[in-house]
Amino acid sequence: MFKKVLVANRGEIAVRVIRTLKEMGIKTVAVYSTTDRESLHVQIADEAVCIGGPQLKDSYLNMKSILAAAIGTGAEAIHPGFGFLSENSEFARLCEECHVKFIGPRSETIELMGNKANARMRMMQSDVPVIPGSKGFIQDTAEALEIADLVGYPVLLKAAAGGGGKGIRVVQDRQEMKTAFTQAKQEAQHAFNDDRMYLEKVMQDVKHLEVQVFRDQAGHTLAFPERDCSVQRNKQKMIEESPCPILTEKERQELQSIAIKATDALNYVNTGTIECLMDQDHHFYFMEMNTRIQVEHTISEMITGVDIVREQVRIAAELELDITQADLTPHGVSLECRINAEDPARDFMPQSGKVDYLYLPTGNLGVRIDTELYPQWTISPFYDSMVAKFVSWGPTRQEAIAKMQRILDEAIIKGVQTNIEFHQAFLERDGQFAKGTVTTDYLEKHFLPEWKKGLNHETL
Amino acid sequence: MFKKVLVANRGEIAVRVIRTLKEMGIKTVAVYSTTDRESLHVQIADEAVCIGGPQLKDSYLNMKSILAAAIGTGAEAIHPGFGFLSENSEFARLCEECHVKFIGPRSETIELMGNKANARMRMMQSDVPVIPGSKGFIQDTAEALEIADLVGYPVLLKAAAGGGGKGIRVVQDRQEMKTAFTQAKQEAQHAFNDDRMYLEKVMQDVKHLEVQVFRDQAGHTLAFPERDCSVQRNKQKMIEESPCPILTEKERQELQSIAIKATDALNYVNTGTIECLMDQDHHFYFMEMNTRIQVEHTISEMITGVDIVREQVRIAAELELDITQADLTPHGVSLECRINAEDPARDFMPQSGKVDYLYLPTGNLGVRIDTELYPQWTISPFYDSMVAKFVSWGPTRQEAIAKMQRILDEAIIKGVQTNIEFHQAFLERDGQFAKGTVTTDYLEKHFLPEWKKGLNHETL
Repeated sequence: MFKKVLVANRGEIAVRVIRTLKEMGIKTVAVYSTTDRESLHVQIADEAVCIGGPQLKDSYLNMKSILAAAIGTGAEAIHPGFGFLSENSEFARLCEECHVKFIGPRSETIELMGNKANARMRMMQSDVPVIPGSKGFIQDTAEALEIADLVGYPVLLKAAAGGGGKGIRVVQDRQEMKTAFTQAKQEAQHAFNDDRMYLEKVMQDVKHLEVQVFRDQAGHTLAFPERDCSVQRNKQKMIEESPCPILTEKERQELQSIAIKATDALNYVNTGTIECLMDQDHHFYFMEMNTRIQVEHTISEMITGVDIVREQVRIAAELELDITQADLTPHGVSLECRINAEDPARDFMPQSGKVDYLYLPTGNLGVRIDTELYPQWTISPFYDSMVAKFVSWGPTRQEAIAKMQRILDEAIIKGVQTNIEFHQAFLERDGQFAKGTVTTDYLEKHFLPEWKKGLNHETL
Repeated sequence: MFKKVLVANRGEIAVRVIRTLKEMGIKTVAVYSTTDRESLHVQIADEAVCIGGPQLKDSYLNMKSILAAAIGTGAEAIHPGFGFLSENSEFARLCEECHVKFIGPRSETIELMGNKANARMRMMQSDVPVIPGSKGFIQDTAEALEIADLVGYPVLLKAAAGGGGKGIRVVQDRQEMKTAFTQAKQEAQHAFNDDRMYLEKVMQDVKHLEVQVFRDQAGHTLAFPERDCSVQRNKQKMIEESPCPILTEKERQELQSIAIKATDALNYVNTGTIECLMDQDHHFYFMEMNTRIQVEHTISEMITGVDIVREQVRIAAELELDITQADLTPHGVSLECRINAEDPARDFMPQSGKVDYLYLPTGNLGVRIDTELYPQWTISPFYDSMVAKFVSWGPTRQEAIAKMQRILDEAIIKGVQTNIEFHQAFLERDGQFAKGTVTTDYLEKHFLPEWKKGLNHETL
């Protein structure tokens, strides 16, 4: 096992990773930007190295600075957390070259899954169901029209080299396609110097379900119970739960089989998440694979008792998985609310500033709060606005929801506006969430307009 | 189900009970002494009633004041927590008379188990193994000598009407017994106006094991996995864990059978704890039954996922248990460290004062902190010094211990001295605890003298 590991991240995920490393008896190295000198992850780590200024490129995206910190402190491995360099295949490769173990999959796997067109094609080759669309790249408008007719409008034209929302165009009908394909191809050539295009149906009334997988060097593959991440705003997950409230055990096994098939096809090593959409007929469609730990891994831990970071570290140290699929049988229900420093009433504008007073309810069974916050900590404007994850667990979904409402009620964060009240309003007023049938467009299409009306009324 | 429940307690247990009631959708009434006006349990309850001055007799032991608060607020039931009036059969009877449901067993059960001599005899009648000693009350010195010869010295002479450490005399040998019995009998007559005496062997090198039981009106009886509460100082538990690290599954079932037999024999209703001693040959001996929730119920909740207060309330509302013995299969290991405001270096003298700064690590899987503390809260000199319970859970005992060490490391309570460092020293330096074989006299006989030496050394 590693004696010392560097955590190349900040905020709650750095704190969370350091805590597991400490419990494993591994020495920890934190890295921090000049603005994060007093941050919690720095305070709880055994060592800490300043890696640059507050701008991302100068510190948390500064590969050389981070690698130098690892080598300088004698860290044998780097845990990248999520975001930042966690899905950067170049960084993973640099680590490999420097003989510092990157705690994640091989750099070529990251690269393959990072290109969404390649990932889609690889999955099709492996008989993993994907979103209806083109089998490969589309040559001309005639082919685009033919495929779009087959899958039905609206469709998405996607540049192979795009990603993160870039190089995507929605096409509503045949008429639009006649001009859109050529334009999109030219734009892709211009933007990415790569004009290869593919096409996917726009999926409506779908749930976002995802399966966390683990695979060790010996080829043992495990799949966690699915997470339902359908409560989203602006394509960002806001509330996640596990397991999905409307899946049968048979459907769960089918989804897990798909995830395991995808993972095995990639000869994957370490953990990853297979993100899928599920339509109203409960059919699953592969969307993408995240080759890192996810924000919402917490809820999978709560219903299985497995520490996901611990397993990541063990696999990176070339140990075999010491859990079995039976250990991943879901026990109860867990929910996560992402607590962001933002002002829902002003279009969710990110907020920064000093936490004047902090009270987090630590008590009773089934409460977990992962956070970077401590009293008098100043939330920085440079980084992501997520500052805490409120996690609840209960033997039933109803109890998990009641517990979450109680946590939201009791928590006090003064000095900086957060979305706690927005979460409360959603859980309290919204019957749809209680039913468990919410789809990915629900929050924005149905809840948010209603909530805004109430807001205006209150303002008057 | 009750619409409103009054919690007749303070501190962390009042907070803990109120939280479950809130999650069950039940309105809560807190009671408080004048010194507890700003306490956490008052802040999180729906209503709060001041019941008198800081002295126990004026407030938390003031039965009439508490019952008046219940009737005045329309509370249909009273949860007594532990300590205070929780094992007061007179209070339970008063509640029954006032048609306010006492959340606990019937008053006659409390009374029966409250008299340790009666409890012992009742258990013997039901074939529950008890500590070797007299079968009934002892008539004269000759009988005392005969029984003591049979069970072996040292023995305890106990007054039937004694309890809580009163009316107990240790007798080392035959010679001492010749005068001791008559003296003890006279003292008992003088102190309790009741000279009935019984005798028990002094059990040495024993573990304190206990089994939490539940029984509903329909006569369904359940037993939780045992708790090992052998780390004690001054007869007070300091660290508890569940399950016991050195029990086989067969022994666990044997102990649970004993507990269930005892519970059924009493036609018990609601929850209670059968406290036993276990000798080096792993034989069990009934010691006493606590007819209330215990401080350390938390660890049983952590390894089973069952909210014990919820079940208490449900049974009091005459619902049947909705859990089965299979739900009580132990999952992993849980530890509790009792955090007291006390100064271990000055003979554990209780401390009071303002909490200037508070940081409690809320994060990662398997952490639970039940506490009355919040920043700027002033710990009162009037009440018990236990201010928090640090609880950890892990899939293995080693992981649960590592997690507890990490929690103790991270927690910060400034302004008032606590025993956090003492816990750290015990867990870090002590190999005996890691082995799981610690007996009830271990801390005081072996660890404490060593620790004091270190303390003097540090002072120099």
